[in-house]
Amino acid sequence: MANYDALPLVVLTEQFAKLPGIGAKSAARLAYHVMSMEAAEVEAFANALLNARRTVHFCRCCENLTDKEFCPVCEDDARDRSVVCVVETPKDISAFERTGEYKGVYHVLHGLISPLKNILPDDLKIRSLVARVQQGGIQEVIMATNPTVEGDATAAYISQLLKPLGVKVSRLAFGLPVGGQLEYADEVTLYKALENRNIM
Amino acid sequence: MANYDALPLVVLTEQFAKLPGIGAKSAARLAYHVMSMEAAEVEAFANALLNARRTVHFCRCCENLTDKEFCPVCEDDARDRSVVCVVETPKDISAFERTGEYKGVYHVLHGLISPLKNILPDDLKIRSLVARVQQGGIQEVIMATNPTVEGDATAAYISQLLKPLGVKVSRLAFGLPVGGQLEYADEVTLYKALENRNIM
Repeated sequence: MANYDALPLVVLTEQFAKLPGIGAKSAARLAYHVMSMEAAEVEAFANALLNARRTVHFCRCCENLTDKEFCPVCEDDARDRSVVCVVETPKDISAFERTGEYKGVYHVLHGLISPLKNILPDDLKIRSLVARVQQGGIQEVIMATNPTVEGDATAAYISQLLKPLGVKVSRLAFGLPVGGQLEYADEVTLYKALENRNIM
Repeated sequence: MANYDALPLVVLTEQFAKLPGIGAKSAARLAYHVMSMEAAEVEAFANALLNARRTVHFCRCCENLTDKEFCPVCEDDARDRSVVCVVETPKDISAFERTGEYKGVYHVLHGLISPLKNILPDDLKIRSLVARVQQGGIQEVIMATNPTVEGDATAAYISQLLKPLGVKVSRLAFGLPVGGQLEYADEVTLYKALENRNIM
């Protein structure tokens, strides 16, 4: 099939299609939409892309995404540094913050162990978590990975690493719908899951 | 609710959320995805955005989007320049080209008349269509706007403008599902609609 679109549009469509959850038709629609945007708007979009990728990096303490040395949670003196909540992605931190009930700090793994997808423990931010616990001052580590096979396996793996270090390791209560996504949980469910966490 | 995301991420999320069909959650997901992309990939994406917006403009003849003076259809000597198919968007051209049955040329309106949305005939590429017909050499103009109220009204309006110029004006047959979107029609339906077009 011959493509009668202008080449720069085809290139842009391909770029949109690379994004997760955007198929060929949506990508073409978005590319055409860009044509109808003001030049200044397109520049703002392009700059936002470049700026986010260039300035945002991992928090030196908890591996959350930040454009400073430490993320806002780690910088907040009011947080309880003796409790660390281990999450898969930075999005999960926002979910916990929405409950307004959690006063501890976080650690972001940036993934889950998944031999099928060739994601091994060394690909995640587990080493820096172990180092944090070894430095002392942490009393409890709450495993808050998604209630899926991979989330459970990762929690179990990390729990085995941390328990010999004399720290309490707990797991979010399964008030969460099993097989669901943590970031879509409502505030109350998430708070209940936090309250009823079980010692591993 | 405090936002614990890094500011450049928030800005990028807002940019994604401005795109059609992308809500707040999807925008956040896409922004996080950009963080996991290689820097070179993000640059390629940003460049594709800027490049498409800067180099793509309207074909001097048919108002299709192109990065050259004329679009590929208008430049193709094998096309029958006596038949002009009038469509709402450049995407509709791709839909017709997929049928492989249409040998004429196109004219892109870039919208439909809609008093409710404050889109008047002068906001569309109608003047250049009339000028093309006045230049002569065109025997038939096929109105191929979507089979919706606005598509029908626009077709009727343009038909009234063109008929005094002594050109045959036809409308796509309603083999198309009424109220549907032209770009999602399958090849056979679209070809039937083209074959059974009615004189206006």
